[in-house]
Amino acid sequence: MTNPYDAFSAVSANYVPLSPLSFLPRAASVYPDGEAVIHGKRRYSWRETFARCRRLATGLNAIGVGKGDTVSILAPNIPEMVEAHFGVPASGGVLNAINTRLDPETIAYILSHGECRVLLVDQEFAATASNALAAMDADAAAKITVIDIIDSEYNAPSTPIGVMDYDALLAKGNTDDPWQLPESEWDALTLNYTSGTTNRPKGVVYHHRGAYLLCMGTISDWFAAKRPRYLALVPLFHCNGWGHSWTMAAQGGTIICARAVSAKVIFDAIADHGVTHFGGAPIVLSMIINAEESDKRPVPAGIQVVTAGAPPPPSVITQMEALGFVVTHVYGLTETYGHVTMNVWHDEWDQDDSKNRDLLLARQGVAMTFLEEQDVVDTETMAPVPADGKTIGEIVFRGNTVMKGYFKNQDATDTAFAGGYFHTGDLAVKHADGYVQIMDRLKDIIISGGENISSVEIEATLHKHPAVALAAVVAMADEKWGEVPCAFVELKGQEAPSEDELIDFCREHMASFKRPKKVVFTTIPKTSTGKMQKFELRRMLNEGQFS
Amino acid sequence: MTNPYDAFSAVSANYVPLSPLSFLPRAASVYPDGEAVIHGKRRYSWRETFARCRRLATGLNAIGVGKGDTVSILAPNIPEMVEAHFGVPASGGVLNAINTRLDPETIAYILSHGECRVLLVDQEFAATASNALAAMDADAAAKITVIDIIDSEYNAPSTPIGVMDYDALLAKGNTDDPWQLPESEWDALTLNYTSGTTNRPKGVVYHHRGAYLLCMGTISDWFAAKRPRYLALVPLFHCNGWGHSWTMAAQGGTIICARAVSAKVIFDAIADHGVTHFGGAPIVLSMIINAEESDKRPVPAGIQVVTAGAPPPPSVITQMEALGFVVTHVYGLTETYGHVTMNVWHDEWDQDDSKNRDLLLARQGVAMTFLEEQDVVDTETMAPVPADGKTIGEIVFRGNTVMKGYFKNQDATDTAFAGGYFHTGDLAVKHADGYVQIMDRLKDIIISGGENISSVEIEATLHKHPAVALAAVVAMADEKWGEVPCAFVELKGQEAPSEDELIDFCREHMASFKRPKKVVFTTIPKTSTGKMQKFELRRMLNEGQFS
Repeated sequence: MTNPYDAFSAVSANYVPLSPLSFLPRAASVYPDGEAVIHGKRRYSWRETFARCRRLATGLNAIGVGKGDTVSILAPNIPEMVEAHFGVPASGGVLNAINTRLDPETIAYILSHGECRVLLVDQEFAATASNALAAMDADAAAKITVIDIIDSEYNAPSTPIGVMDYDALLAKGNTDDPWQLPESEWDALTLNYTSGTTNRPKGVVYHHRGAYLLCMGTISDWFAAKRPRYLALVPLFHCNGWGHSWTMAAQGGTIICARAVSAKVIFDAIADHGVTHFGGAPIVLSMIINAEESDKRPVPAGIQVVTAGAPPPPSVITQMEALGFVVTHVYGLTETYGHVTMNVWHDEWDQDDSKNRDLLLARQGVAMTFLEEQDVVDTETMAPVPADGKTIGEIVFRGNTVMKGYFKNQDATDTAFAGGYFHTGDLAVKHADGYVQIMDRLKDIIISGGENISSVEIEATLHKHPAVALAAVVAMADEKWGEVPCAFVELKGQEAPSEDELIDFCREHMASFKRPKKVVFTTIPKTSTGKMQKFELRRMLNEGQFS
Repeated sequence: MTNPYDAFSAVSANYVPLSPLSFLPRAASVYPDGEAVIHGKRRYSWRETFARCRRLATGLNAIGVGKGDTVSILAPNIPEMVEAHFGVPASGGVLNAINTRLDPETIAYILSHGECRVLLVDQEFAATASNALAAMDADAAAKITVIDIIDSEYNAPSTPIGVMDYDALLAKGNTDDPWQLPESEWDALTLNYTSGTTNRPKGVVYHHRGAYLLCMGTISDWFAAKRPRYLALVPLFHCNGWGHSWTMAAQGGTIICARAVSAKVIFDAIADHGVTHFGGAPIVLSMIINAEESDKRPVPAGIQVVTAGAPPPPSVITQMEALGFVVTHVYGLTETYGHVTMNVWHDEWDQDDSKNRDLLLARQGVAMTFLEEQDVVDTETMAPVPADGKTIGEIVFRGNTVMKGYFKNQDATDTAFAGGYFHTGDLAVKHADGYVQIMDRLKDIIISGGENISSVEIEATLHKHPAVALAAVVAMADEKWGEVPCAFVELKGQEAPSEDELIDFCREHMASFKRPKKVVFTTIPKTSTGKMQKFELRRMLNEGQFS
């Protein structure tokens, strides 16, 4: 009998070839206006760099470059050199960046041995390139299309030697064709010749997988915070604690254990063990905010907190920030090893007026680096919804941190991966900048008179009321409207508003038709991670417990 | 005709299955005394955690756990729970961490559906586990070996229910068996059940590849410095600039270009563009240290610098530190995509007296996270050299950032990968803590009267002399000794010591037999990255230019 763990094959939802080419569309999407390349007076944003790299890739295709063709470049560290590192492999070609200090004879050897098809030449090295081409076997040299790079920051006189310049090559390309990852992560990415001080230089071949892993590892070892001290509040039985015990081994960090979660445990760990990072559901953050004075201890500024498990009311995040914590909103599911979506924050958003900042805080965000693709699609047609911040669809994922599948449940696995994506069952809108915001679980959306009403939106509105500690909204059967919202509310204690007062508060703070038609004051049933158990509330409603 | 880029197959030198299990032996090696897990009064270092995980893995093997067997655990976030995340998959088993808040019936369903073979139970949940086992089909329950976890931080009365406790299980294991990575990165790692609020819970299967990528991506997105601004001094034609243009896309950072490298370019970029990171050969660092006053501009503290390309004299690093830079010493080759070895710094080393600190600074260090294995081996037998800081051997590597191979050169590829490792051709010693220190290129070592003399060691000694700007040492033919060291020296300018004075200086500061027998004052030929071209010096010596 075969082991049931061996039953899974890789599919497009859970297997994507590793390649540094994945980083570029993400940078263009998440940091479109971020400075990507600076060179003297020249400036390119990530949006512009991505567009130029797409033009380079498709321009190269237009002049005949295909899979496994070598494209050489002779240039200093200028924007075109950076672009070649993305655009050449995206064309299917293999990038061969040649040392500009080499003598023409050695360059001739490299162009010949490397089977160069296209040579990109910065003007500073036009003469060197000419001499190298002249030193080659004529047949091999004739196979090379030479393109001149004219850098406006290079002011010496120059004599183009190519059939066209780089800008003309970009003009032959387009930004419509899809950005191509390699068929296999083992495909060749670049060809780099050794210095060959004593012998002929040797051509070292890199592959996409190696370069991807190099980059992520370099971030880990050089760019990252060193030796973090992680307080393990998130149970390791939830998505293996989002992988953090493994991650701490990768960083040589420290795991601070907690048998149970309380405000005292958290404040003590921070004060006694120098916690630098932890994660918690919004309810854990509320616990910190509403801690008894006797449990509180000083908190150094800058402790990093991720929150997930339920969409946090923006007020919870801003109150945490007031205490000095840096809160990052993430989203994910058991099926995605935990967090795969992050509300990557832009510093300029801090300048925003507070109301808009609240809206920005409420969003789940964009795909993390290791997730290949995230989208919001129509639940019927799987067509992407418009990025209008209004149209509701289902969040779907594709990437290497999507599960193999469900154990001994091929039907559920097939359903989850239908159409090549993992279906989250969560409903969201996509904003103009690509950031997603969850509106509801597919099964929690309230359909009232044909209109979709998000229970999460009503809950966020109720949280703005000063007396409300916690709110849960579910659909209640209604003869006229089909369904209407019913709110369950936990109060903070002192103040006790009436049902009508809260309904009026909602009417004032959101579209009137979305207001709850009923408010029940009660303790809301929750899971261990603070997820409200709406199915319990629905069951109690159906049983008529609140009639 | 097949494309020559398709000629490479993955071998053990350049392909290792991705797995978070790789992180643990590295943490134990690099941070042996670093705090790994803290739980109340309990403390474990990474060395201890690794030892316990090895015992857990082999202990599970001893009671019959093999590949694809499910090992379940019912525990809060305690050290044993962390250890299970490494030890269970290292045993070949699949970890199933069960939500402790679930009712016994649901747990019974999970144990049964998940085909549990071993159940680890914290005492707090012994009664729950008993009830769950009692609710199962008797045949399925009989297949489960129950192990009690006795946590000294749990003070309530408890009744063990298992056949032995966790410590007894560890005692059945050992720390001698090799730490096992999965055969395939697609192998199952963990089994995590969904909450199953409305239906039966579904068992989500994770694989090693996904968890590895999740961890590296989490470091990138959460733990790492955000939006770095990288000054591209290292030519992109050297190992594709160590991958940094791709890495900047992964981080949404900024690439600041430089057509040429000079002190002015560097100071200007720092002042005008807010550079946070750059890399440079030791000669580039010397350029910064010895900059003309008119080229200097203010440097904010904390700019991160990696240096490589040649072993930097410790004095160069300390002078850079005095300017406020944070310098990290790395090592790698074209064949390894650039840097793969890093002198990971321990804060306590800063407390060391300055002489020892210099020795620590001179070391190349340990494997970076993405390199699977680094060792120093006998050049004849490939046996690892003792970690004594004295015995010289060749540095070898194995990992996913080792090249596919040499283009159209199967012989060189085979030679480079002989014995399952990539051979660097660099000679090094291994210190007691596992950190390596390069002594020479295989071809640069000087063999004098049967003794190996490291040219790098003599160069470092000469650099301590206040008048010496740069030193290069090569072997010179000698009738009596076979070879003797000959030093080439560039002076700083003002002061001009005699040949004898420098030879005497060396005699005083190192083993006398290692002193150079000849000193030539000249300009040393260099490559564009500041590597001294010793083959040129040897050629000139052989031609009798300095006789």
